[in-house]
Amino acid sequence: MYIKKQRLLTPGPTPLLPQALHAMMGSDIHHRTEDFRKIYRAVLADLKEVMGTSNDVLALVASGTGAMEASVSNLFSPGDRVIVCSAGKFGERWAEIAKAFGLDVILLQEEYGRSVSAQRVADALKTEANVRGVFVQGSETSTGAAHDVRAMGQAVQKTDAIFIVDAITGLGTMPLDIDGWGLDVVIGGSQKSFMIPPGLAFLSISPKAWGFAETAKLPRYYFNLKKEKKNAANGESSWTPATSLLLALAEALKYVKALGMDKLVANAEMLASATRAAVTTLGLELFSPGCPSSSVTAVKAPKGMDSGVIVKEYRSRFGSVIANGQGSMKGQIFRIAHLGYFDFPDLFAVIAELEIILTANGFPVKFGSGVAAVQNAYAEVALAKEAAAV
Amino acid sequence: MYIKKQRLLTPGPTPLLPQALHAMMGSDIHHRTEDFRKIYRAVLADLKEVMGTSNDVLALVASGTGAMEASVSNLFSPGDRVIVCSAGKFGERWAEIAKAFGLDVILLQEEYGRSVSAQRVADALKTEANVRGVFVQGSETSTGAAHDVRAMGQAVQKTDAIFIVDAITGLGTMPLDIDGWGLDVVIGGSQKSFMIPPGLAFLSISPKAWGFAETAKLPRYYFNLKKEKKNAANGESSWTPATSLLLALAEALKYVKALGMDKLVANAEMLASATRAAVTTLGLELFSPGCPSSSVTAVKAPKGMDSGVIVKEYRSRFGSVIANGQGSMKGQIFRIAHLGYFDFPDLFAVIAELEIILTANGFPVKFGSGVAAVQNAYAEVALAKEAAAV
Repeated sequence: MYIKKQRLLTPGPTPLLPQALHAMMGSDIHHRTEDFRKIYRAVLADLKEVMGTSNDVLALVASGTGAMEASVSNLFSPGDRVIVCSAGKFGERWAEIAKAFGLDVILLQEEYGRSVSAQRVADALKTEANVRGVFVQGSETSTGAAHDVRAMGQAVQKTDAIFIVDAITGLGTMPLDIDGWGLDVVIGGSQKSFMIPPGLAFLSISPKAWGFAETAKLPRYYFNLKKEKKNAANGESSWTPATSLLLALAEALKYVKALGMDKLVANAEMLASATRAAVTTLGLELFSPGCPSSSVTAVKAPKGMDSGVIVKEYRSRFGSVIANGQGSMKGQIFRIAHLGYFDFPDLFAVIAELEIILTANGFPVKFGSGVAAVQNAYAEVALAKEAAAV
Repeated sequence: MYIKKQRLLTPGPTPLLPQALHAMMGSDIHHRTEDFRKIYRAVLADLKEVMGTSNDVLALVASGTGAMEASVSNLFSPGDRVIVCSAGKFGERWAEIAKAFGLDVILLQEEYGRSVSAQRVADALKTEANVRGVFVQGSETSTGAAHDVRAMGQAVQKTDAIFIVDAITGLGTMPLDIDGWGLDVVIGGSQKSFMIPPGLAFLSISPKAWGFAETAKLPRYYFNLKKEKKNAANGESSWTPATSLLLALAEALKYVKALGMDKLVANAEMLASATRAAVTTLGLELFSPGCPSSSVTAVKAPKGMDSGVIVKEYRSRFGSVIANGQGSMKGQIFRIAHLGYFDFPDLFAVIAELEIILTANGFPVKFGSGVAAVQNAYAEVALAKEAAAV
């Protein structure tokens, strides 16, 4: 155990796609040239293609939170009433942003580990007057819980409100029929399923949402979606673009297109399912068993053990970086990610490491038993399919 | 199983050290400058330090075979009698090079999977007249067999012959006391324990070997060790150096020095031992059980199965690149590497993958049982040590 490779296995930043990383070296390029415009146009077109939408897709030099703010500041006016679904740290962030910009927030809160039901959203839309927008996380990264954005979208679609989905970890880990389900704004980030470093956010904007932009009166300057749309049509960004990240994203999108967005989602779903099987085999409890996200699996530490010890020993024993709980969940849960550039060999190792860490800390498990659960998950899909094909 | 990361897990090229890979980007440097001379001097000094020798250490722009040829063409004259130990493809290469340069080869051959005993070398040195050199592999990469270079060195030291050790995969995987054991020439390559891409070879040369260089009459031009030594003293290479690789090597040597060469060796030894435990647990047979190398473990495919299927399925199922047998061993054995930038998580995954591949091909094994053997190997060393420390 002298050599310990640093393996970044968190729910963002995620493992980097090598060819995307290498492409960053080509960033001795000026952004106001036809060479760059060609790349920028291709990136926006590819994003639109993998997101599977006819809506406009724009990119911003920002982390995902910047695009969250942009969707508030560009589409609403002071005092607008909005519904915020909150079941974790990122739901709370929606509420914080909305309040910072003076919106009138109707908070639909759920405790950590659960998700806000689509029925609650539908009910609130009926009982509350003048709701202009509904905000939610597709996947709540802090708790590993997924929201039923399809059913929520159907409820919002019938109203005059727009539906804004933080799909920063949802994109590439859950099916999202943006146009069919009425997802007016869908937000993504570069450092998630897109397999490149942080620094770029992007969002799709429906015609209904653009209508809101026409009347929105909140102050804005850097995040100006209308300006961004106008410039994007000319292959330009409003401000200096993050060229290295865009070059990386261009490569990553080639990979995702070749793989297929549906396969990227299926990959995350299989790994998430295998992880749930493995940790429950090891006697651990899932934190969000009722609404598990495929982007990240949150697992409760054994009774009497701080989850920080697990996170720390992943690093100290093996070099692996996994995520602790966030906020009040710190020390309670640890999180194993599946979004983006993750594969079965990653998971074999992550579970083998977990077995050792538990055993080393007075929670002995049968070595190999969790790994076997992952192998069985692989076999059920892959080997069964091969047997059927013979 | 849609995402399959390419993991290069062969006994050379080996997995790349990220910081060494990134350092290659700094190669917009000219080699006849003081900036470069500083780097070149540091690399040669660091190589000498990690090899643990007071002998001269030189670098060549070549693969390991180039340094093997250099040790022949620079130290011998036509018709010189030499002993070549051969127990695999690389032993055969020594014989081929020696014969290509018109040396008189006394071949001490062993069948693949075994090693030439030091006693045979000692005996040959007694019975054969005028032996000028003895050639051997420290680790015979093609079969995963190690030679007892310590005992051989002791035998050669008593004679007028010089001892030339191909340690291309031996360096960093087996203890090598170059000065103490009388290893006159020790050859290494960049793409092995040094964790960088192929293209650089290096060798240490003892005073006894330099004496041979004074009288050696074989033709040479590109590989001129005396010229190289003279230039190295000025921080220069005789011909254009591979700057990108030297920048990478400078970073890799920093890593190896910080880790400690003894720890690098111990790391390979632990992984090799754990691999042997895992594959035998799975009912497989080791190819070189009597003299296992820690650089690579050669494993026989199950009876009735082509080892090429195993190699192919590692790639097709999981993206992992492991090695088939070479030459006549192709199809018979597969090889799991441990040299250089390998760690326990790599091995957890490699064995979990093997379990699936065997099961998928009609050789069912208990999922997780081989992984558990690796985990037990980790626990025996790490957990036992921690328990003792409490």
